[in-house]
Amino acid sequence: MAAAEPIPPTIEWRGHSIRLLDQRALPARLRFLACNDVDTLVDAIATLAVRGAPALGVAGAFGVVLAADTLRTKRQVRAAAARIARARPTAVNLAWGVARGLEAYERGGRDTALDVAESLAADDVCRNRLIGTHGAALVPVDGAVLTHCNTGALACVGYGTALGVVRAAFETGRRPKVWVDETRPLLQGARLTMWECGRLGIDATLIADGAAAALMGRGKVDLVIVGADRVAANGDVANKIGTYGLAVSARQHQIPFYVAAPASTIDLATANGDAIVIEERDPDEVTHVGSHRIAPPDAEAFNPAFDVTPARLVTAIVTECGAARPPYRRSLPAHVRRAAEVVTPHP
Amino acid sequence: MAAAEPIPPTIEWRGHSIRLLDQRALPARLRFLACNDVDTLVDAIATLAVRGAPALGVAGAFGVVLAADTLRTKRQVRAAAARIARARPTAVNLAWGVARGLEAYERGGRDTALDVAESLAADDVCRNRLIGTHGAALVPVDGAVLTHCNTGALACVGYGTALGVVRAAFETGRRPKVWVDETRPLLQGARLTMWECGRLGIDATLIADGAAAALMGRGKVDLVIVGADRVAANGDVANKIGTYGLAVSARQHQIPFYVAAPASTIDLATANGDAIVIEERDPDEVTHVGSHRIAPPDAEAFNPAFDVTPARLVTAIVTECGAARPPYRRSLPAHVRRAAEVVTPHP
Repeated sequence: MAAAEPIPPTIEWRGHSIRLLDQRALPARLRFLACNDVDTLVDAIATLAVRGAPALGVAGAFGVVLAADTLRTKRQVRAAAARIARARPTAVNLAWGVARGLEAYERGGRDTALDVAESLAADDVCRNRLIGTHGAALVPVDGAVLTHCNTGALACVGYGTALGVVRAAFETGRRPKVWVDETRPLLQGARLTMWECGRLGIDATLIADGAAAALMGRGKVDLVIVGADRVAANGDVANKIGTYGLAVSARQHQIPFYVAAPASTIDLATANGDAIVIEERDPDEVTHVGSHRIAPPDAEAFNPAFDVTPARLVTAIVTECGAARPPYRRSLPAHVRRAAEVVTPHP
Repeated sequence: MAAAEPIPPTIEWRGHSIRLLDQRALPARLRFLACNDVDTLVDAIATLAVRGAPALGVAGAFGVVLAADTLRTKRQVRAAAARIARARPTAVNLAWGVARGLEAYERGGRDTALDVAESLAADDVCRNRLIGTHGAALVPVDGAVLTHCNTGALACVGYGTALGVVRAAFETGRRPKVWVDETRPLLQGARLTMWECGRLGIDATLIADGAAAALMGRGKVDLVIVGADRVAANGDVANKIGTYGLAVSARQHQIPFYVAAPASTIDLATANGDAIVIEERDPDEVTHVGSHRIAPPDAEAFNPAFDVTPARLVTAIVTECGAARPPYRRSLPAHVRRAAEVVTPHP
C-alpha cells in the first residue's frame, strides 16, 4: 500500500479568481484552472471541471464574488448569479450557494459575499468530517463497501461525503474494501474515486457498472453508500445515473443502502422525487469516452445525468447531524434544523 | 432512416482459412481477419475478434478443420482442438462446436469435419430465424425493447438471437424502439449492436449501462431481451456481465425478461448456475477503454465477463423450438430434444 498523499483543495479563492482542481484532467494530470471571469466559471461547472453537489455550492458562492469583482452594476451581478445557478439544474447546492452569496452581496457588498463563501468552504470540510464520523459506525471492521461516482474530497471542498464515510472508517483503523463503480458516462468512479483511494491508501477495486449486481449476488458487498445531489422532503434521492439500479439490487439482496450528504442537500421545498428536474446531458458523453468515439457516427444516445431512488429503498441518510432513518418526512426536517447549529458559522 | 445495408457473414470458411469479420475494429472499420493457423484463431477468440456464443460454436468446428489442414498428426489435431475449446470457458457453444468438429474428423477425416462445420454455420442462421419468428410475437407493435451486449448477426454466423427477435419483429412491420446498453467493459452494445441497428434501419438509442433501471422506473421499457452464453438445466442463465442487474430491475418493475438463444446453449449436464465457470478477463479491459487508460496507473480492477441470472427472474427462454416457460427443468429438455428435428441437418 502506498503512503497517503494529500489531496489539494478542490476549490479556493485566490485574490481575484477562483482556483479549481480541474477534474477533467484527472487521473492523467493534476492540473488547476483559474477562473477569472463568470464565463469561465459557468463553463467549468457545465463541463465538470468542478462537480459534486457540495463543491458546486461553494463554487456558486465564490461565483457571486467573482461576478462582483468583474462586472459593473448590481443588475449585472444578479444576472450573472442567475446564470451560474442555472449552469447545472439538478444539484440543489449550486443554486443554494449562489443564493447565499448573493444575499450576502446584497446585504454587505463584495467583501461580505467573500466572507460567506469562505465560511461555506470551511464549513463544508467540517460538515463532511461529521458525516464521516457518524457514517463510520455503519461500516463493519473489514466491510466491503460498494460506491458509485465520486463523493470524495474532489466532490466537495475537501474530505468527502459518502467516500468520506469510508475514509473516516479507514482513519479509525478499519480496513474497508471498496468496490468502485466506474460510473459511465463520465467515469468519475474510475478517474476520481480510484485516484483518491490510491492517494489515501484505501483498498479499492474498480468494476464496470454492470458488475455491481453480480457482486451483491455473490455476497461480496456488505453495504452500498452513495452521495446525493438532492434529497426531497420524503427522502427520495436524486443522484448520479446508476444509483437507482444499485438501490434496487441492494434491496433484492438485503444489503443496506446508505446515502451520505450534508443537510444542505435536503430540499424540504421539493415534496418528492417526481418534482426533481433531471439534467439531460450531451449524448456525445455516451457515444464517446473522452474524445474517443465508441459508437457509430450516426448513433443516437440518451444521457440522463441523474436518477431518483425512492425513499423506501434507502436504509438511512447520513448527514452532519447523524443518520436519518425512515420515515424521512419526520426525520429530515430535524436534520435541516439542527444542521444550522452543529457547525459554528465562521470556524 | 437510412436504407438497410447487409451485414457480411461473421465467419466463413475460405478454402484453407477461416475468414472472420474482425469485431475488434467495429464500428470504426469493417475489417476481416484471415486465420491461417490455430494460434491465430485462438488469439482471435480470446481477444473477441469473433465472439457471441453461436459464432463461437461455428468457430470451434471450423477450428478443427484448420487444425487438420495445418497439423501433421491426429494427436496434434486433438491437442489443438482442446486448446481452441479452452480459449473461452463460459460459452458452452465453443466446446460444443469443437466437439462436433472433432467427432466428425475422427469419424471421416478433414472433409467430413468441414461438412459438419459448414452445416453448423448454415444451421445457425436457420435456427436464428426460427428464434426470431417465435420471439417476434412477444414484442408489442411499437414496443420499447431494452437489450444488452450484442446478440445480433455479429454474435452468430448471421441474423442474431435476441437482436434477431427485434429484427424479426421489425421485418414483420412492427416498429420496435431499442434501448441499447453500451455494455462495458468491451462496449459490444455501443460498438456492435448500434452498428447493426444502423445498418438494418432499426430505431436504436444508446444508453450507459447505469441508465437502464431508471428507464424502467420511468415506464420506458416494455420488455428486456438478452442472449445467453450458457443455460443450465434449471433455467439459470449465464450471460454478459450486467444481465443479472437488468433482470433484478425488470422484476422490480414487472417488466418481462426474455432470453433468446439456440437450444445448443442449453446445457442439461449443468444442474444450475452455481456450476457455471465464470470467465474473469484482464483487468485492463476495465481500467482502459480500448487503448485509452481511464483509471490511475496502479488501479486494481475486477473483470468478470459474465454473471448468472437465476431462473426465477426469467420470464421465458426463446429457442428455435418456441418459448420455454417455467418450470424450466421440465420445458428445457423438450427444447433440446426437438431442436434436433426442427432444422434439416444439411440445408
